[in-house]
Amino acid sequence: MARNSLGREIPANWKGVDYEPYIDPWSRMPAVQRSTRPLERRTPWDSKLLGSLHEAIEKCGLESGMTISTHHHLRNGDRLLNLVIQECDAMGIRDLCVASSSVHPVNAEIIPQIRNGTVTRCETGVNGLIGELVSKGELDFPIVVRSHGGRARSIVAGDVTVDVAFLAAPCCDETGNLNGVQGPSACGSLGYAYTDARYARKVVAVTDNLVPYPASPVSISQSDVDWVVKIDSLGDPQKIVSTTTRVTRDPAGLLIARYASEVIEAAGLLRDGFSFQTGAGGTSLAVAENVRNRMRELKIKGSFGCGGITGYFVDMLEEGLFHTLFDVQCFDLKAVQSLGRTLMHREISADLYANPFNRGCVVNRLDCVILGATEVDVNFNVNVNTESNGLLLHNTGGHCDTAAGAKLAVVVAPSIRGRLPIIREEVTTITTPGETVDVIVTERGIAVADKHAELKKELVKRRLPVKGIRELHEEITKLTGVPRPVEFEDEVVALIEYRDGSIIDVVRKVKEG
Amino acid sequence: MARNSLGREIPANWKGVDYEPYIDPWSRMPAVQRSTRPLERRTPWDSKLLGSLHEAIEKCGLESGMTISTHHHLRNGDRLLNLVIQECDAMGIRDLCVASSSVHPVNAEIIPQIRNGTVTRCETGVNGLIGELVSKGELDFPIVVRSHGGRARSIVAGDVTVDVAFLAAPCCDETGNLNGVQGPSACGSLGYAYTDARYARKVVAVTDNLVPYPASPVSISQSDVDWVVKIDSLGDPQKIVSTTTRVTRDPAGLLIARYASEVIEAAGLLRDGFSFQTGAGGTSLAVAENVRNRMRELKIKGSFGCGGITGYFVDMLEEGLFHTLFDVQCFDLKAVQSLGRTLMHREISADLYANPFNRGCVVNRLDCVILGATEVDVNFNVNVNTESNGLLLHNTGGHCDTAAGAKLAVVVAPSIRGRLPIIREEVTTITTPGETVDVIVTERGIAVADKHAELKKELVKRRLPVKGIRELHEEITKLTGVPRPVEFEDEVVALIEYRDGSIIDVVRKVKEG
Repeated sequence: MARNSLGREIPANWKGVDYEPYIDPWSRMPAVQRSTRPLERRTPWDSKLLGSLHEAIEKCGLESGMTISTHHHLRNGDRLLNLVIQECDAMGIRDLCVASSSVHPVNAEIIPQIRNGTVTRCETGVNGLIGELVSKGELDFPIVVRSHGGRARSIVAGDVTVDVAFLAAPCCDETGNLNGVQGPSACGSLGYAYTDARYARKVVAVTDNLVPYPASPVSISQSDVDWVVKIDSLGDPQKIVSTTTRVTRDPAGLLIARYASEVIEAAGLLRDGFSFQTGAGGTSLAVAENVRNRMRELKIKGSFGCGGITGYFVDMLEEGLFHTLFDVQCFDLKAVQSLGRTLMHREISADLYANPFNRGCVVNRLDCVILGATEVDVNFNVNVNTESNGLLLHNTGGHCDTAAGAKLAVVVAPSIRGRLPIIREEVTTITTPGETVDVIVTERGIAVADKHAELKKELVKRRLPVKGIRELHEEITKLTGVPRPVEFEDEVVALIEYRDGSIIDVVRKVKEG
Repeated sequence: MARNSLGREIPANWKGVDYEPYIDPWSRMPAVQRSTRPLERRTPWDSKLLGSLHEAIEKCGLESGMTISTHHHLRNGDRLLNLVIQECDAMGIRDLCVASSSVHPVNAEIIPQIRNGTVTRCETGVNGLIGELVSKGELDFPIVVRSHGGRARSIVAGDVTVDVAFLAAPCCDETGNLNGVQGPSACGSLGYAYTDARYARKVVAVTDNLVPYPASPVSISQSDVDWVVKIDSLGDPQKIVSTTTRVTRDPAGLLIARYASEVIEAAGLLRDGFSFQTGAGGTSLAVAENVRNRMRELKIKGSFGCGGITGYFVDMLEEGLFHTLFDVQCFDLKAVQSLGRTLMHREISADLYANPFNRGCVVNRLDCVILGATEVDVNFNVNVNTESNGLLLHNTGGHCDTAAGAKLAVVVAPSIRGRLPIIREEVTTITTPGETVDVIVTERGIAVADKHAELKKELVKRRLPVKGIRELHEEITKLTGVPRPVEFEDEVVALIEYRDGSIIDVVRKVKEG
């Protein structure tokens, strides 16, 4: 065990793999080559169509101890990861590693296969029950949590080698050209799957919508796909994309959103060329709504919106408020429909989006990102992975990637959530280092990182409720009381990897109550 | 020296590199990994803009003995290759290898730098004077001629490592996002440049049209580009794309075109899903015109057109006769304009287009390609590299790639050109092996490869002038006489590499008259 620069105890080796402790957001760059794979040759008119997942698993030579992946664009409607793992189980394959881009609550279906040793390691963050059971020590399933950019990096740099990638393909032809915008399982951008398609040693496209050659538009090309499997259904369309994302109606949320948009303006970012990312939460969308109105009033032409794309951003593109959308994931139906229609709404890989180890990712050009938090601490460190009960319930997403890239990373959160204060002396888990977080906005006040003295002055001038982070912390804690600290055992059940591959924190087993 | 399967004498080693003799179009697949390069990290808002080519050459560490590349989409309007090599000369850099996607007549400007040793090797085919002088032994510039797919393969497989790629970027932002469809040097698709962008150890985007971030649409992304240089002009827009490509008016050409389109129909290919490639020559376009008319009459919906794209194919896309265009290169202004406009007109890399060593390239799905020839022999071998005077004047292009991929490879050529017979006992140089060529169409008759007995029968039934290839050869030679054979010395001045990396033929120095 060694302490990293944020004071967290990090194992030098965990489950047989060496790790480096986090130092800072900028400096780590090991001398490493881009990962490779064997070239293969197919003769003209060679068929890639196989009859079943079973056959694909055999053709790919998938064996015990190997690593598989899927992408999570089908979200909580995804069936594919479950089907693949259940099939592997039936075939007697054991000790698999899951390196999907994320694991959703729907994937709790694979818990029996975790228990029986079909899958025994997890190189991806998890959302939901699996993480909870791992946190409680009820499932033996070591997890390495990675951000979107960090996951791309881990595969491109060869830290993780995917033996077989199973790509859910909402529209696919028999050579493996595929897109996410057509068919019953349309999910929009396939941004997280690009890295798998390029780097996995074998790539299987699985579709419920086999179309005549060539599937167009094409997200992932035939030249990267080994086999194609047609199945009845990739998942539940109702759960693949929410039909709409909505602005909050909660008064506190609206107040936070107003403050946040004033912060953006006060920072001088609302000028031609403005670039912006928000999530799909109600408060984030309310910020987007305010920003959009101000851009209209000021007649500002932004450059790009990026990340997970909502219908709000599509409207802004169509209105000319953005020049381009860089879309790594569609958050709603309107975004899905737009993606297949216009060249300026551009699907991008997680690598291009946020991998810190390429020649320049998109988040490096962000003016402002609006982020959420489950906890923030007095050093501006942010936790989105664990809840205050210590349970690992959420994946990192692009949180630490965009915070590092953006000029202004603004965390928006209610000051109190479930009777617990949002601001803590220390966060339970550090997802995103405070060095990359610029402003915390709550309905009770705005805390600005010390490095932004000018911005702080400007906010005061605009009569916004600027407060010191400790002051805000105390004010909130007076209302909530100091929460009883969660007790942990020594056992590390998950690592929180920073985007550069260093370990920023660990998740320990929660002590039984 | 060993004889390859077509009887050509091939050196086992040439200029210090080992080569394998050609065996057949299908079987060669060495166990090889995809080429790699070091990963690099850029901090947010880091500038890539440099003041000059000079500075870029320094920043990239370009030194004597290294390999550089450019792409040839600016065709005979290109200035960049000349500028780069002249700058290297001025900086005292010597012994460079040129691995551009092609060298055009305009690049004869670098002859002084070939003579003074700035550039001493050529890993690409040449069009024009340089090849002529090399053939005559007047320039010492060993050339390895490659097809479009073969060049992509050579770089992806690591046979050729490009140290610094200079990408002519008609539209580019300061991070290196670039496209070919906007600006004074717009050339359309940048298909040949993708491989360089992905595999060169350093990538410099050179533009005469620097636009605000993000350049959109994007062909090559910021994550692949190291540096950006703004120069006054990439070349002569008049010569970058011809404004129009035109159907032949020559009666023999029109007759050939009619025969060729009847061959396509007789082969049963004119059905829904038809896929097609032609060049931009007048006769090829006349075939396209006939095919288009028949598709209309028969109400056929084709699948795709590919290769170099002309306005004729754009019209066919817009008319619904094709579902998609796969565009590796734009042949005219109409194609350039269409490319930046519709998702169904899709820019593709030479790798995806024709590299035989990936998981399936586009030419593998071609129904029919219409090809040209400078000579054809009685075994259906085709020469497009040398003229009948023995001079190396033309690059291979996609000739052998599409012939290998297509179900029906049809060579169209006048029976007599410049008083010389098109059909020979032996071609001067084998570009494309006869095993991959199906039909030769001249105005004096149609020769069908023996393996297509059914097609031959059908053509006879349709009262088309089917003749044996030897019969056609004799008939033509009766008119022209047997041409005096060109005399060669022993010295090999160029290798003709087949798309799979084996050597299908050599070019020898022409004996002085």
